[in-house]
Amino acid sequence: MNTEQDGYPTGHTPLLSAPPGRPTRAVVEALSGVSAATACAKLHHQGVTRTFIDGPAPLHRDAEIRVTGAAVTLQFMPQREDVFSGQGQEDAERRSALWAVLESIRPGDVLVVSAQAAQRTGCLGDMLVRYFKLRGGAGIVVDGRIRDAGKVRALGVPVWCTGVTPHYASQTELFPYAYNVPVAVGGALVRPGDLVIADDDGAVVVPPSHAQAIADDALAHQDKEEFARRRLDAGGRLSDYYPLTGRGLDEYVAHQGSSNGR
Amino acid sequence: MNTEQDGYPTGHTPLLSAPPGRPTRAVVEALSGVSAATACAKLHHQGVTRTFIDGPAPLHRDAEIRVTGAAVTLQFMPQREDVFSGQGQEDAERRSALWAVLESIRPGDVLVVSAQAAQRTGCLGDMLVRYFKLRGGAGIVVDGRIRDAGKVRALGVPVWCTGVTPHYASQTELFPYAYNVPVAVGGALVRPGDLVIADDDGAVVVPPSHAQAIADDALAHQDKEEFARRRLDAGGRLSDYYPLTGRGLDEYVAHQGSSNGR
Amino acid sequence: MNTEQDGYPTGHTPLLSAPPGRPTRAVVEALSGVSAATACAKLHHQGVTRTFIDGPAPLHRDAEIRVTGAAVTLQFMPQREDVFSGQGQEDAERRSALWAVLESIRPGDVLVVSAQAAQRTGCLGDMLVRYFKLRGGAGIVVDGRIRDAGKVRALGVPVWCTGVTPHYASQTELFPYAYNVPVAVGGALVRPGDLVIADDDGAVVVPPSHAQAIADDALAHQDKEEFARRRLDAGGRLSDYYPLTGRGLDEYVAHQGSSNGR
Amino acid sequence: MNTEQDGYPTGHTPLLSAPPGRPTRAVVEALSGVSAATACAKLHHQGVTRTFIDGPAPLHRDAEIRVTGAAVTLQFMPQREDVFSGQGQEDAERRSALWAVLESIRPGDVLVVSAQAAQRTGCLGDMLVRYFKLRGGAGIVVDGRIRDAGKVRALGVPVWCTGVTPHYASQTELFPYAYNVPVAVGGALVRPGDLVIADDDGAVVVPPSHAQAIADDALAHQDKEEFARRRLDAGGRLSDYYPLTGRGLDEYVAHQGSSNGR
Amino acid sequence: MNTEQDGYPTGHTPLLSAPPGRPTRAVVEALSGVSAATACAKLHHQGVTRTFIDGPAPLHRDAEIRVTGAAVTLQFMPQREDVFSGQGQEDAERRSALWAVLESIRPGDVLVVSAQAAQRTGCLGDMLVRYFKLRGGAGIVVDGRIRDAGKVRALGVPVWCTGVTPHYASQTELFPYAYNVPVAVGGALVRPGDLVIADDDGAVVVPPSHAQAIADDALAHQDKEEFARRRLDAGGRLSDYYPLTGRGLDEYVAHQGSSNGR
Amino acid sequence: MNTEQDGYPTGHTPLLSAPPGRPTRAVVEALSGVSAATACAKLHHQGVTRTFIDGPAPLHRDAEIRVTGAAVTLQFMPQREDVFSGQGQEDAERRSALWAVLESIRPGDVLVVSAQAAQRTGCLGDMLVRYFKLRGGAGIVVDGRIRDAGKVRALGVPVWCTGVTPHYASQTELFPYAYNVPVAVGGALVRPGDLVIADDDGAVVVPPSHAQAIADDALAHQDKEEFARRRLDAGGRLSDYYPLTGRGLDEYVAHQGSSNGR
Repeated sequence: MNTEQDGYPTGHTPLLSAPPGRPTRAVVEALSGVSAATACAKLHHQGVTRTFIDGPAPLHRDAEIRVTGAAVTLQFMPQREDVFSGQGQEDAERRSALWAVLESIRPGDVLVVSAQAAQRTGCLGDMLVRYFKLRGGAGIVVDGRIRDAGKVRALGVPVWCTGVTPHYASQTELFPYAYNVPVAVGGALVRPGDLVIADDDGAVVVPPSHAQAIADDALAHQDKEEFARRRLDAGGRLSDYYPLTGRGLDEYVAHQGSSNGR
Repeated sequence: MNTEQDGYPTGHTPLLSAPPGRPTRAVVEALSGVSAATACAKLHHQGVTRTFIDGPAPLHRDAEIRVTGAAVTLQFMPQREDVFSGQGQEDAERRSALWAVLESIRPGDVLVVSAQAAQRTGCLGDMLVRYFKLRGGAGIVVDGRIRDAGKVRALGVPVWCTGVTPHYASQTELFPYAYNVPVAVGGALVRPGDLVIADDDGAVVVPPSHAQAIADDALAHQDKEEFARRRLDAGGRLSDYYPLTGRGLDEYVAHQGSSNGR
Repeated sequence: MNTEQDGYPTGHTPLLSAPPGRPTRAVVEALSGVSAATACAKLHHQGVTRTFIDGPAPLHRDAEIRVTGAAVTLQFMPQREDVFSGQGQEDAERRSALWAVLESIRPGDVLVVSAQAAQRTGCLGDMLVRYFKLRGGAGIVVDGRIRDAGKVRALGVPVWCTGVTPHYASQTELFPYAYNVPVAVGGALVRPGDLVIADDDGAVVVPPSHAQAIADDALAHQDKEEFARRRLDAGGRLSDYYPLTGRGLDEYVAHQGSSNGR
Repeated sequence: MNTEQDGYPTGHTPLLSAPPGRPTRAVVEALSGVSAATACAKLHHQGVTRTFIDGPAPLHRDAEIRVTGAAVTLQFMPQREDVFSGQGQEDAERRSALWAVLESIRPGDVLVVSAQAAQRTGCLGDMLVRYFKLRGGAGIVVDGRIRDAGKVRALGVPVWCTGVTPHYASQTELFPYAYNVPVAVGGALVRPGDLVIADDDGAVVVPPSHAQAIADDALAHQDKEEFARRRLDAGGRLSDYYPLTGRGLDEYVAHQGSSNGR
Repeated sequence: MNTEQDGYPTGHTPLLSAPPGRPTRAVVEALSGVSAATACAKLHHQGVTRTFIDGPAPLHRDAEIRVTGAAVTLQFMPQREDVFSGQGQEDAERRSALWAVLESIRPGDVLVVSAQAAQRTGCLGDMLVRYFKLRGGAGIVVDGRIRDAGKVRALGVPVWCTGVTPHYASQTELFPYAYNVPVAVGGALVRPGDLVIADDDGAVVVPPSHAQAIADDALAHQDKEEFARRRLDAGGRLSDYYPLTGRGLDEYVAHQGSSNGR
Repeated sequence: MNTEQDGYPTGHTPLLSAPPGRPTRAVVEALSGVSAATACAKLHHQGVTRTFIDGPAPLHRDAEIRVTGAAVTLQFMPQREDVFSGQGQEDAERRSALWAVLESIRPGDVLVVSAQAAQRTGCLGDMLVRYFKLRGGAGIVVDGRIRDAGKVRALGVPVWCTGVTPHYASQTELFPYAYNVPVAVGGALVRPGDLVIADDDGAVVVPPSHAQAIADDALAHQDKEEFARRRLDAGGRLSDYYPLTGRGLDEYVAHQGSSNGR
C-alpha cells in the first residue's frame, strides 16, 4: 500500500480493513428503527468503542427526528494561501471539494463534514443546504459551524453542528480540501459508505459490517424493553424488569411463547 | 484529480498547488538563521496568514533551541476496532504507519504528528524517539501528547508537544493511520516537504516556495534590528529606531554605505 | 467523627453542621413560589454564596417550568475495573447505586446526580427516567449527560443536564458509586435533604435551615417588584422604583397602608 | 489626544478613526433587510474582518428573528471592593452605569454589554429588560449571562447571551463600570453608534461608514440568489448558478433586462 | 451495605471490591523501579483502563524525579457557609480535614488531593508542605492548585498540581471536607491504600492487588527494552527489535540463555 | 461625571473611588518583602476579594523571582480595520498606544497588558522588552501571549504571560488601543498607579490605599510563621503552631517579650 510521492514514501497502516463501499438500501432500512443510543451500546458490546461523534447537536428544534443513511464525507483543512491558489473567493469555492461533494450526493445520503470544531468557519449555508435537499440528501453532520441558521432551519433538512456563525466557508481559517476520504469527526473515524444514525442524542457511526447484527439485536432489545415498560407501569420493581434478566426474562420468554402460540 | 472508489467519487479541490517535494539542503540552510517569529511575520506580509502550529510547546527546558528542517508527517485517527484489525497491540503497532514513518526519516527531517490535540494518547515514547535520533531526525512537533517524558528529555531530541501522559500510542482513542499525507496540526496545514521552524515561540510552517525570499528578507531585517538595538542602547527613542523607517532608516543607509565603503 | 478503617484514620471536618434530614412538606410548599434567581440572591445576602449548580441546563423546551423539592443524591466515580467487579454490564448496573437510588425516590423528590461534567457517560436514559416518574419524582439535575434525550423529553419529566450522548451509564469512564451521600455538583455542595429549586435560570441548592426565611422574604420582595412594575409601566423612572428604596419605598408603604385599610 | 492624569500620561492610539455618532434612521432602515451572514461576508470583502461577536446566542426560541439598530454600550469590570464603594448592593447598583445606560436608550437601540463571558454574573434580569422594552429598545447582546431567563423570554425582547444564571449583576465577580465607551465583545470592537445586526447566526457589528454600501450590495446579492434558487429548483447545477458568475450571470443579466423591459 | 441516615437510605454499589488497606513496604519497593508509563500500559493490558490522573503536572523542574507510595486522600468540597460553620478562617482551617490528613501521613506516603481542578483555591502552601516533609511524606498529587510555589519548590517535596495561585485553601470556592475517603482525581478513582506512581509523565494509580504482577512484568519488559536499545544502537531496524517479538525475541532468548549460561 | 459625546451620554459609575495616582517609593519598598500569596490573603481579610490576575505565568525559569511596582497599563482591543486606519503595519504600530506606553515607563514600573487572553497575538517581543528594560521597567504582566520568547528570557526582564506565539502585535485579532486606562486582566481590575506583586504564584493587584497596612501586617505575619517553622522543625504539632493561635500564640508572645528584653 506504500507508494513514493515527491521523494516521500507515503502510505497507510497496512492492517486496516477495506473501506466499505456503498451500503445496500436493505441494510439502511434495517437500521432505520434503531436509535443512536441503542446502536452505540450494541457496538460497544461488540468491541467497537468510539462510535459517538461528540460535539454536533441538532440545529432543528423539533424533538425525535432521526436520520439513518450512508456517509458522504467532506474534509476542511486549515487555510494556506500558497496552497489554495484560487483567484477570488467565489470562483475558488465553486471549484472546491465543497461543490464536488454536493454533486456526489445520492438520495438518503448523510453528509459528514470534518472541520475540527473550528469556530470561525461557517461550513455550509442556505444555498448549499438547499441544493443538498434538492438532491435528496437525508441529513448533515458537521463537527464545526454552519451559517444562515434561520433559513437552514426553515428548509427542514436535519442538521447537527457545533454552532452557528455568520462567517462563510473560506472566510478565515479553513477551506474545503477533499471529499469522500476518511475523516475524523468529534472523536470518531468516518469513511464514505459507513452508516450514520443521528437523533436527539447526537450522531453515531455504524460500520456496515455490523449493521445487520445491530438491527436484529436492537429489534429483540426493543421488544424486551416494551415488555419491561408494561411491567413497570403495572407496578413492577426496576431491578426485576430492567434489564430483563433472571426471573423477569423467564416471564418474558413465557409471555412470548403464549403470544406466538396464538 | 477526481477518481471513483468503492462507488464514491473522491478527490481534492482542483485549485491546490502541487505538493512541494523534498527541499534542497541549500534552502534549509538559508532558513536556519531565521526565527519562527520572523518567518511568521514575513509570511503574513506575503499573504500566507495561518503558519503557526498553535498548541505544541517545547518539552525540553533549555532556552533558545531552534530546529529547521523538512516535514515528514504522521496522521493519527480515532480508534475504530473494526477498521484497525491488528491481532494484539504490540504487533499491530509495529506494522502501523508509526513504524513506517520512522523508517522514512532522513537526517535533518522534522517529524510532524497530527493527533487532534487528543489528551489520552501518548503518540511517541522513549524507544521511538531514540530510533528517530539514530536516523538523524532533527526535531519532533506533535499536536498531542507524548509519553516517557523524562527519558525523551534525556535523549536530547527537541520535542514540541501539547502535554505528556503515561498512555501508549493506541491505548484508547487514536491509532496511527497514515504517513506523509497532508495534515492539520494546531490550525495549520503541513504537507511532506514543507519547511518547519520550531523554537521557543513554537513551530511555524514555511512553504518551500517562499523559503528563499524569507531567508533573504530576514537577513536584511536582522541587520536593521541590530543597528536599532545599538541606537536604543545608546539612548535613542523607540519610535525613531523601531521599526526602522524615516530618519532612522536614513541613518542606517548612511551607516551601511560607510561600512561597505571600508 | 474520626474512625480507623483498613489502617487509615478517616473522617470529616468536625465543624460541619449536621445533615438536614427529610424536609417537611410545608417548607417545600413555602418555597414553591420562589424562583432560583430570587433564592440565590437572598441566600447570598444571608451569607451563603455558592448555591448555583453551574452547568446543567433545561433539556425540556417549554419555558417557565420550575421544580422545587428535596434532594436525593447519586454519585458517579471514575470507572476502575478492579473495584467495580460486576459480571457483565447489565447485571452489574442493576445492582449498582443507580438502581438503589431510584428505589429511594419519594413523591416530589429531586434527583441530583454528580458526574463531574463527564462527556462520555449517559448517566440516565429513558427506562430509568420512566421509573423515576412512576415513583413520583419531580425533576432531575445532572452535572453530566443523559441518553435517550428524545424519549426523555416525551416523558415530560423536567431534566437539567450538561448535554446528551448515546453512551450508557457505565460505558467507559464512570460508574454509579454511592447514593444519598454529599456530592459536588457544578461548583455547589448538595446533601440529601437539601432543597433544590430549578427553573429556566438553572438549579440552586437551598439549605433547609434557610428555606422558611427565604420564602417569607421572597413574598415581600415579589410584592414590591409587582408595585415597581406597575409604576414603571406608568412611566416611572427606573432609579425611583427599582430597587424600591427611598421615595419609591415610601410610596409603596403608603400604597400598602391604603390597600390594607380597605 | 494624550493627557496627563494623576501623574500618568494617558491616551489612545492616535490613528483611530473618529467615533461614528448617532446613525440616521435611514441607514438603519437600509440595513434592516440584510442578514448577519451577508453583512459579515460583505464587510470581509471590504477589508473589515473581525465583525462577528462570537459567543452570544439567541435566548428566544422563535427562529428568524432579526434585530438591526444602533449600539448603546455597557462595560462590566472585575469587582474590586476598594474601587466600587457603594453602601449596600441595591443602592449601589441603582447609581451605577447599568441604570444610567438604560436611561440613555432611545427607540430602536441595541444594548451591547461587555462582560468578558463571565460565568457568575447575571448582567440583566426581568425588571431591567422590562424597562429597556418600555423605552423602545430593539434588542440586547451580552457577552455574558443574564438572569430571570423565563420572564425575559416572556417579555419578548430579543436577547443574545452566552448563558443564564440565577446570580445578580454585582453578586461576585463583576460590576457595571462605564457606559457608551468602546467595548470588546466576543472578539469584536463595538463603539456607541456602530450598527449591530443580530439574528439566528449571532450578532455582527457594522461600521456606519460601510452601512449604505453593504445595504446596496446586499440588495443586489439577494436578487441574484433568488434567481439562482429558482434555477436550482428547476434542476440547474450548483456550479452553474451558485455563485452566480460566468454563464449563469449572463442568464441573470438577460433575465433582468427582459424583466425591466416589460 | 445500605443504611438509613436522617430518613435517607444510603449506601454504595454492593459489587465493589473491598478497599485495599495499607500496602506492605515490600510491594511499594517492588514497584519503585517501574515508570508511570509502564505501569499504565501493563494495567491496561490487564483490563484496568482508567489509571492516569490527568491534569496534575510536576511543579518541580528537575527531570526524572519519580515517587512511588501509598495514597492518603483529602477531599475538598464546594464552600457552603451554612455547612462549614467555623468561627474565623484560621481556626476553622486548623480543625479541618486538611490538618487531620497531615497528621495521618506516614513515611513514604503520597498525599492525593481531590479539588475538582478548581482555579481559585490554593489547596496547600509552604507551611503545610513543610509539615508533610517533616512527617516523611514522599510526594503530593493535587487535581487543583497550590500556593507559595517558590517556597514549595525550595522545600524539595515533589508536587504534581494543575497550577498555582496566591489564594489560600478556603478563600472562596472550596474547603477541606473529608480525608481518607475514595476520591475522584483527574478522571481516576483513588482510595486510601492504593499505590501511586508519579513521574515526568504524570501520576498513575496502581491497585495493590496488581502491584506485584506489574512489578514482575515490568522487570522483564525493561530487560527486553535494554536488549532492543543495544540492537537499535548497533544499526538494527525498529520493526525487528521493537517491540521484541518474532525473530528479535528469538535472538533475545538465545542471548539470555548464553548470558545465564556464563 | 457624565458627558455627552457624539450624541451619546457617556460616563462611569459615580460611586467609584478616585484613581490612586503615582504611589510613593516608600510604599513600594514597604511592600517589597511581601509575597503575592500573603498580600492576596490579607486583602481578602480586609474585604478586597478579587486581586489575583489569573492566567499569566512566569516566562522565566528561575524560581523565587519577585517583582513589586506601580502599574502602567496597556489595553489591546479587537482589530477593526475601519477604526485603526494606519498605513502599513510598521508605521501604524509605531504610532500606537504600544509605543506610547513604553515612553511612559519610569524605573520600577510594572507594565500590565490587557489582551483578553487572546491566542493569536504576540503583544510584545524582543525589541520592545529591551526598550522597557532600558527605561528601568521592573516586570511585565500580560493576560495574553508574547513573541521572541527565547530572546526575552535572555534579556532577564521578568515576564508573566499566558503563552508564547510567533505572531506580532497587530497580526490578526487585536491591536494596541489605549494606555494608562483601567483594564481588566485575568479577572482583576488594574488601574494605573495600583501596586502589583508578581512572583511564582502569579500576579496580584494591591490598592495603594491598602499597601501600608498589608506591609505592616505581613511583617508581623512572617515573624509568626518563622517562629512556627522553628517549632514544627523541633517536633511541634501542626495544629498547635499553624496557624499561631491559642497556646502557640502565648508561647510566641512570651518568646517575643524575652527577645525584645535583650
